Amino acid sequence: MGMIDGLSRRRVLAGLVGAGGIGTLIACGTDPEVLMSTHRDGTSVARNTVWYAEHPTPAAAAMPTTAMDAGMTDHTGSAVSASTQPPAKNFADMDRMHEEGVKTFLAQRKTKRGGQRLLPEMTDGVKVFHVTAAKTQWEMTPGQVVEAYTYNGVVPGPEIRRNDLGDESTAIHFHGLLIPNAMDGVPFITQPAVHPGESFTYEFTARNPGSHMYHSHMNSAFQVTKGLLGAFIIEPKDPSTYPAYDRDYTMILGDGPLGYFLNGKSFPGTEMLSAKKGEKLLVRFMNEGLMIHPMHLHGIPMTIVAQDGYVNPPYRCDTVNIAPGQRMDALIECTETGAWAFHCHILSHAESENGMFGMVTALVVT
Amino acid sequence: MGMIDGLSRRRVLAGLVGAGGIGTLIACGTDPEVLMSTHRDGTSVARNTVWYAEHPTPAAAAMPTTAMDAGMTDHTGSAVSASTQPPAKNFADMDRMHEEGVKTFLAQRKTKRGGQRLLPEMTDGVKVFHVTAAKTQWEMTPGQVVEAYTYNGVVPGPEIRRNDLGDESTAIHFHGLLIPNAMDGVPFITQPAVHPGESFTYEFTARNPGSHMYHSHMNSAFQVTKGLLGAFIIEPKDPSTYPAYDRDYTMILGDGPLGYFLNGKSFPGTEMLSAKKGEKLLVRFMNEGLMIHPMHLHGIPMTIVAQDGYVNPPYRCDTVNIAPGQRMDALIECTETGAWAFHCHILSHAESENGMFGMVTALVVT
Amino acid sequence: MGMIDGLSRRRVLAGLVGAGGIGTLIACGTDPEVLMSTHRDGTSVARNTVWYAEHPTPAAAAMPTTAMDAGMTDHTGSAVSASTQPPAKNFADMDRMHEEGVKTFLAQRKTKRGGQRLLPEMTDGVKVFHVTAAKTQWEMTPGQVVEAYTYNGVVPGPEIRRNDLGDESTAIHFHGLLIPNAMDGVPFITQPAVHPGESFTYEFTARNPGSHMYHSHMNSAFQVTKGLLGAFIIEPKDPSTYPAYDRDYTMILGDGPLGYFLNGKSFPGTEMLSAKKGEKLLVRFMNEGLMIHPMHLHGIPMTIVAQDGYVNPPYRCDTVNIAPGQRMDALIECTETGAWAFHCHILSHAESENGMFGMVTALVVT
Repeated sequence: MGMIDGLSRRRVLAGLVGAGGIGTLIACGTDPEVLMSTHRDGTSVARNTVWYAEHPTPAAAAMPTTAMDAGMTDHTGSAVSASTQPPAKNFADMDRMHEEGVKTFLAQRKTKRGGQRLLPEMTDGVKVFHVTAAKTQWEMTPGQVVEAYTYNGVVPGPEIRRNDLGDESTAIHFHGLLIPNAMDGVPFITQPAVHPGESFTYEFTARNPGSHMYHSHMNSAFQVTKGLLGAFIIEPKDPSTYPAYDRDYTMILGDGPLGYFLNGKSFPGTEMLSAKKGEKLLVRFMNEGLMIHPMHLHGIPMTIVAQDGYVNPPYRCDTVNIAPGQRMDALIECTETGAWAFHCHILSHAESENGMFGMVTALVVT
Repeated sequence: MGMIDGLSRRRVLAGLVGAGGIGTLIACGTDPEVLMSTHRDGTSVARNTVWYAEHPTPAAAAMPTTAMDAGMTDHTGSAVSASTQPPAKNFADMDRMHEEGVKTFLAQRKTKRGGQRLLPEMTDGVKVFHVTAAKTQWEMTPGQVVEAYTYNGVVPGPEIRRNDLGDESTAIHFHGLLIPNAMDGVPFITQPAVHPGESFTYEFTARNPGSHMYHSHMNSAFQVTKGLLGAFIIEPKDPSTYPAYDRDYTMILGDGPLGYFLNGKSFPGTEMLSAKKGEKLLVRFMNEGLMIHPMHLHGIPMTIVAQDGYVNPPYRCDTVNIAPGQRMDALIECTETGAWAFHCHILSHAESENGMFGMVTALVVT
Repeated sequence: MGMIDGLSRRRVLAGLVGAGGIGTLIACGTDPEVLMSTHRDGTSVARNTVWYAEHPTPAAAAMPTTAMDAGMTDHTGSAVSASTQPPAKNFADMDRMHEEGVKTFLAQRKTKRGGQRLLPEMTDGVKVFHVTAAKTQWEMTPGQVVEAYTYNGVVPGPEIRRNDLGDESTAIHFHGLLIPNAMDGVPFITQPAVHPGESFTYEFTARNPGSHMYHSHMNSAFQVTKGLLGAFIIEPKDPSTYPAYDRDYTMILGDGPLGYFLNGKSFPGTEMLSAKKGEKLLVRFMNEGLMIHPMHLHGIPMTIVAQDGYVNPPYRCDTVNIAPGQRMDALIECTETGAWAFHCHILSHAESENGMFGMVTALVVT
């Protein structure tokens, strides 16, 4: 079902394969049967089963889990929050819980993280990215493992990034890219739904640089918030068309069945941002959730230089509101040293009486 | 209770009349007794009764329906969602439901729609608009008929539009217009509440061009979300003061007792936007709901050229967040052909496991 | 634990003291034990007990109230709404309730209000502000008294304002100020948690002018929405760096356990804004709640001149959306006389079938 766009044969193919599929392909299939059968009846499944995308277990489709297991109880995220710890007995107990979270965060324990750069395979001068959808047991924060839907086994899915633009074709479907209609990934409008085990190849020329995303567009309120999401960043061919920065971070915001998260992790499992004094940091906020998240950085102002990949007149703030589907690029001049709290300012997404959780991290400037 | 503003007698009168009133008048009355008695006690009413504004049925006031009937269970819209279809049995069944919705949408079946331009009656050089409030059985999408509160029998109410400005007086109360305080329509602050069968005449000079709205300001959290809303567009006298476009669409966003809707209709009952390649489209987003709606257009960027009727420095995006009460005017250069999905990116307002619903439409560029 | 920043000894100290503390100190202590013990077990407390910060009652810590008493039932504010009056029996009864609220509002009964300017004590050339946290019975609107957490006995806490900037050090921790990391007020990251009866001194040089806030950063989703919040405004040394205005108002938006409020009061208990025709008003919106609040002013446009204290390119609107943590400064040229409704346009935050409540006030231009 692939299609070729652009004059050049130098292009990127992106492939998705479902958990019920036959391994890693350059072609891809969103896999509604396997992904979705889990919440259609009440039979249970062993919770510790792990299906890696690389080793799909077709039998999994026959072992649906319950709606509860699948985190279907709340699509809006409103009931998905905070810790399950018992309430504090007194101020000292509350202090202990608050402090424990911060200590765990500061220790930055090694854990499997999503969003790492995906390196393409070169085939006939074509960059081929392999992307596979599956159910995966995923650690949100130390001690909390949940069933997630993943691209390549991680939340967020691997970051797809292009280093040039224009005369080269490029990869995978989704949010923000200007691509031919047939590659837009909307089942029954631009393409057929891809059945379990089937595949679909997206192939197009990348045209518009910026901070973009890729995610499911089938049963999306559930599939996306359950983890089928990732960053798709296109760097401009001419860097002078974009404000200069020394290093960049992608911060994908999410809520729903996995709880409140930054890059697929909940505090204290979240990753710190770090910078040296004097550096210019670019933070690429991307909202893949169902709720608004006004992100607040302590101690250092932000300059919003782009929205949805478009460089707009800049404005300064310390709290930037990102709505679902939006991406905001913020420049941060790291002039102040210290560990600066960085969190959603809907405080119930960031702190409970048991301490901070969810959408909290810190920018550490040394 | 009318009042004349401005030097010229060339003016527009807008009249409202309640369902318990005596027919079409140039005067108007919001009609709290009839409109609101429906949810004050538990007695029931035949659900298939239709009260057209043009043929008001005073007896209706004596036949209140239950709170449930009136859709009072959720003012916030959070529980009003998705379809009532049984869950899919397997991937093929889910596919079928998803596809069915898209097919129904693409067929664009003829249905009664709101928001059509209201033509005034000329009386002594005065443009008189007749607007009547009533309860109406309203089709949200093929197969789903609900009780709505309507202006002139439709949701949204008829669009009121002026083709010139300045030395002419003009019509009806509400949101965004710069008018004399006495015409502002806030019961007990700027005017008495208008009782059932009574009327009130709004009369003023239109001063500020732009995309505005009119809606109830009495028990508004319920009356507005139940349907008493409409667009009031004032075109600038001098078109050069506004960015040029080839055609425009009004897209009123709503949530609450009627569910999630675009112009009073839920997908697949929503209307397509269409354009020819190369055309410049202006979309006037207006949020009459209780929730934020970040509207996302696939495949083509938007340039936001005005907010609340004011031409501001433009910025580009692909997802524009419209808060309740706001209006955003977006210019879209239709350079890409195809059927581009156009939906709220709070995905739970747009898709369930039974397929797309609610705030979804498409821009078709040919 | 205080720390001195900057070259000059001319500085401002801000002190907080908990309700379990030993009186008014220049040092301060957020007091989690006393503040939070109230919702950890089910024993009850006399509801009419008032603990003034100035006369702390340590025994209070031993008399915890229930979770319900503490307003813990809904951190998100979604269930905290509207009045508890019985529903109207008919349109006349509904009219009466709507009118009663407006009359009470227009009468502007004398009531204890928060947010008044806090005058510092001069000690050795240092401005010292005393700020004390406590539980207080607080009148939200005539007839509705609730338990609030307060700074200096009021919601919002007293306004802290500086008339100059630069070579002088200044006061208290919180949101928006560019201060040394050690003064940032995040327990376990920048400082230890301050135990009941203990204190902490914040001392720093004010650097960035603008509309800022101070609030708790411990168990904040609860403590802030329960009342531990206030404005911290730094006026620019050189007024020409900021758009000119004749007078300014601070409008702190809140939701959660206290219900929907403006400056700690619910309609009709809210305070009017007043101006003379021709005056330029500056309204400083500050969102200390957990929800978005799009504030709509009838009849007169607003020009947004600053966000989070930063002067950005201005834009005009009539409905400005303020997300949690954000501050928006709006210039209003009072060219139109009358009583103009001014309210959150999430209508369920502003009106029920019993009339207006919550986030409603009026701008009266004479």
